[in-house]
Amino acid sequence: MDPSDLALGIDVGGTAIKAGAISGGRVLQRVETATPHDLEAFLDALAGLARELAGGTALPPVGVGIPGFPAPADGSILGAPNLPFLQGVPLGPALEERLGVPVRVDNDANLAAWGEALRGAGRGRPDFLLATIGTGIGGGLVLDGRLYRGPGGLAGEFGHLPVGHDRLCGCGARGCLEAAVSARSLAAWAREEGLEAADLRELAALARAGNGGARDLLRRAGALLGEALAQVALLLDLRVFVIGGGGAPVLDLLREPALQVLVLRAFGREREDFELLQAELGNDAGFFGAAALALEAGARA
Amino acid sequence: MDPSDLALGIDVGGTAIKAGAISGGRVLQRVETATPHDLEAFLDALAGLARELAGGTALPPVGVGIPGFPAPADGSILGAPNLPFLQGVPLGPALEERLGVPVRVDNDANLAAWGEALRGAGRGRPDFLLATIGTGIGGGLVLDGRLYRGPGGLAGEFGHLPVGHDRLCGCGARGCLEAAVSARSLAAWAREEGLEAADLRELAALARAGNGGARDLLRRAGALLGEALAQVALLLDLRVFVIGGGGAPVLDLLREPALQVLVLRAFGREREDFELLQAELGNDAGFFGAAALALEAGARA
Repeated sequence: MDPSDLALGIDVGGTAIKAGAISGGRVLQRVETATPHDLEAFLDALAGLARELAGGTALPPVGVGIPGFPAPADGSILGAPNLPFLQGVPLGPALEERLGVPVRVDNDANLAAWGEALRGAGRGRPDFLLATIGTGIGGGLVLDGRLYRGPGGLAGEFGHLPVGHDRLCGCGARGCLEAAVSARSLAAWAREEGLEAADLRELAALARAGNGGARDLLRRAGALLGEALAQVALLLDLRVFVIGGGGAPVLDLLREPALQVLVLRAFGREREDFELLQAELGNDAGFFGAAALALEAGARA
Repeated sequence: MDPSDLALGIDVGGTAIKAGAISGGRVLQRVETATPHDLEAFLDALAGLARELAGGTALPPVGVGIPGFPAPADGSILGAPNLPFLQGVPLGPALEERLGVPVRVDNDANLAAWGEALRGAGRGRPDFLLATIGTGIGGGLVLDGRLYRGPGGLAGEFGHLPVGHDRLCGCGARGCLEAAVSARSLAAWAREEGLEAADLRELAALARAGNGGARDLLRRAGALLGEALAQVALLLDLRVFVIGGGGAPVLDLLREPALQVLVLRAFGREREDFELLQAELGNDAGFFGAAALALEAGARA
């Protein structure tokens, strides 16, 4: 194993932290722990995972994905509603101090997109959107073969595009995609319609078993997804959309209604112009992208 | 005058063609003619304008902006609804054959954005959207200091973002920004509300004179503009929006309601994060950007 090619990736979620050691584009080892919800315990947990993966050898560079955004200017964390104790914390420097190696921090959906670009459904596709349908809905943009973060570092907020329904979103606005089509919102929506489904997996199972109500609900959800994808198509002329997170296995139930709306709204394109793909790296995408980012940063340093 | 720095720009509109000779970042000369609506007369008109600007000296490189999109693969024109005779025509090669110099063709809103980036409201701003509010609504994206055209060349279709009203758009969908907030749509909307305004200029004059109905209509139009800008802010994290075309002089009447919606929908940003600017180059932006493109192409060749 070429040690110059080794990096650690850490993917922080609201409930679990997943981490992996990557070399030669392959995952050598995976570890996981619950997400602590105060800062000191959180930093300890991340440092502990990194040391566990390094197994007593010298630490390679570390990349960290978080459900929030590091400010381009100073790396302090902006907008991490699920981990409020991180707000304003310069996470990269704090971890570098504990670990003594370079640490790169980025948004989790950005890093999942980057992981898919390098080794997943985005390979060979220089321009695509990754949308992660989980508790919330995140997005990462790969444009011209590079991760696009935007001038303020907040690009890719796919989940808050307006799609024309009336539900209130956690962000304070009405009609966001996330307020109807996140895994959590879909489960709530299913309950409102009297469907016996505790979560998105059960809802999908009902639909696959032929339940008319479940099929109809997922058809409407797919159309709403299409509304948001159309905005991306109009603005950026993207043709490739990769769906990740817990919603990825349900894509076959959403694809057709999404495509119908996409073709209607993003005029000038045909159905054949679009690819709606399932993400390929699953839970590995985030830490894979994080490790790749750490390695690129190291290579540039 | 350094002849290596001279270029001609031609900006093709549905009714008029504007052209200029540019050197050292300044407009040396402007000419204009009506737009012919068949292909041979059209090519003759463009060639005539170029020769008129060159004034008997050797032709410099030529850039052309059109209300349509050249396909990245072969330069044939896609989607030019106002100049249907251009559909499928490889305009660049056709003009190169007539003129004997390199000709670059791009979308008119792209080139206006590029003009504003180089010499107008976008100077020193590496990431912005130019929205042209004219008969229709066009858009051009400058990202990371470069014109972003998208993988299929159709990026920047700002006018067809959905903003939550029920009007039918020429593209076949409902609720597009253009169907309510283009200069033509605003004039129609004003007539529906019984306002005595033949066009956007008269509508703005009514509002400035204190007419409550005109003020209210432009407030609602500003809010719809804000809905579309919010989508751009969420997806790309853009903070700078430049408004050009006939709508530019009305921006002061649209800004406040647009900002209110923008801040509500693009959560995590403050009002101070955004700049809504009036385009500075007016009718020159398109041919200025076209000439700059021709010069860059020449420099690279």
